[in-house]
Amino acid sequence: MKELKQITVLGMGLLGGSITLAVLRSLPKVKAVGYSHRPVTRRKARQLAVATEIANDIKQSVSEADLVILATPISAFDQVFCQIRDSLPAGCIVTDVGSTKVLPHRWAAKRLPKGVYYVGSHPIAGSEQRGVGFARADLFDQAVCVLTTTQKTNRLAAEALKKFWSQLGCSVKLTGPAEHDRVLGNISHLPHIVAAALINANNDQTLKFAGKGFMDTTRVASGPVNIWTDIFLGNTKNTAGGIDKVIAQLEKLKKAITAGDKKQIEKLLEKARLSRARLVKYKMKRKESLL
Amino acid sequence: MKELKQITVLGMGLLGGSITLAVLRSLPKVKAVGYSHRPVTRRKARQLAVATEIANDIKQSVSEADLVILATPISAFDQVFCQIRDSLPAGCIVTDVGSTKVLPHRWAAKRLPKGVYYVGSHPIAGSEQRGVGFARADLFDQAVCVLTTTQKTNRLAAEALKKFWSQLGCSVKLTGPAEHDRVLGNISHLPHIVAAALINANNDQTLKFAGKGFMDTTRVASGPVNIWTDIFLGNTKNTAGGIDKVIAQLEKLKKAITAGDKKQIEKLLEKARLSRARLVKYKMKRKESLL
Repeated sequence: MKELKQITVLGMGLLGGSITLAVLRSLPKVKAVGYSHRPVTRRKARQLAVATEIANDIKQSVSEADLVILATPISAFDQVFCQIRDSLPAGCIVTDVGSTKVLPHRWAAKRLPKGVYYVGSHPIAGSEQRGVGFARADLFDQAVCVLTTTQKTNRLAAEALKKFWSQLGCSVKLTGPAEHDRVLGNISHLPHIVAAALINANNDQTLKFAGKGFMDTTRVASGPVNIWTDIFLGNTKNTAGGIDKVIAQLEKLKKAITAGDKKQIEKLLEKARLSRARLVKYKMKRKESLL
Repeated sequence: MKELKQITVLGMGLLGGSITLAVLRSLPKVKAVGYSHRPVTRRKARQLAVATEIANDIKQSVSEADLVILATPISAFDQVFCQIRDSLPAGCIVTDVGSTKVLPHRWAAKRLPKGVYYVGSHPIAGSEQRGVGFARADLFDQAVCVLTTTQKTNRLAAEALKKFWSQLGCSVKLTGPAEHDRVLGNISHLPHIVAAALINANNDQTLKFAGKGFMDTTRVASGPVNIWTDIFLGNTKNTAGGIDKVIAQLEKLKKAITAGDKKQIEKLLEKARLSRARLVKYKMKRKESLL
């Protein structure tokens, strides 16, 4: 693999801006180029100095990149691959930060030329905020980043990308795209569904009694609607399967509560409490962020 | 109403210890007496100096109190009312910090003597931690506290209690016990159910991929099992009704996702996003904590 001299991030939102900021902080010798198709975003990104350079032209922005990172909404990936394919230098690594991975792998295989190495990335970081104005150099500190590879993936490219995310502060895990979408459907996409359902089950009058527990439980539902719609549409089967699993668990709890079955309620709550305690311990051991 | 010279808190857990600590901080002229039936808890509470005095005898602890606050698990309330009824001074206000209110009102009406004024309290504060070791003087700062009254409630006692919780830092709302249990069933008890279901829908392998979103969404599920079991058993109908509502919302989202109905997914997510945005605005305006 080439030495990393330039990375280019396509899409200057919360994630894209945070990647270039994190590169400026952690890899000061690397040129961090950002691009957005919206002039107003480019202007804002320049004002905030989130990158070494904000490019006006997408093709030009990638022409000297050793690593190109797509940070647009997932629904734009296929089009972006088409736009950049002829401008990518040989040996370049291409990745994306989409929250689903099966479709990006499929699009990359179809669109990207030989001699360019695609690996999927999913840094599980971000917040319910959106836009480059919320970009932070420390967004990836202690975050989990899942890399997705297939049998066709260049191992050296995957290694280089693993090193890159580690240098940005991530705890990196590797898996396949289908496995990623199955697991993340349950652990990441499902909480968003559940949070939205919990809010929509209440009206403005009952919401006024919300305490910290409710605010925490529903925080993710303040996230950007278009991004999350893309995610659910890109992972329909797993998300629907996850919803079924949660409903089954809710029915189990409801049955125990309706029956006044103290032992069964305690059993189910204790199971959840212990699972979460093991998870907290696991994350602390790996120095992954809990907040 | 009498001037507040002594309060007695029965039960020295996270909430009980935080009340006496908050009184020491915000009402330094008031004597804050704490009681626990467990010698080890009394010892710990004394070591941590969470109260002016930790009493060894429950009857003695309330005999000169102007305000008695039950901070034990709800399932102990009826018994505690019986234990203290003959020792309460005339004119004393009695309240509790239980998360359900219909049953405490019923028990108080049955057990407490005339000349003693019961009002329900539900400070929506706490954390997933438990025990006096986690008690904090600022636990109630900017928290919502719901007071519950009936037609029989002494208005002056309710006013005095409202003042007390406000002085401890709470934003106080008044409602009836049945209305409280209905609303809180949806806004406070339901998030716990949903969080537990979300964890139990995952296994240790998928949990390892949890990001901050999952940790936040499930935080409350680390709370004490006995406390929450009491809450659900004390509010079965409303909790079960709330579960039905959430399931209906989950089914709606699942239908839209399975159908690939982009507009409907966006509509449901946007509804949740806007509701939460209004809630955040409302809480900020009232200076209620968002965290």
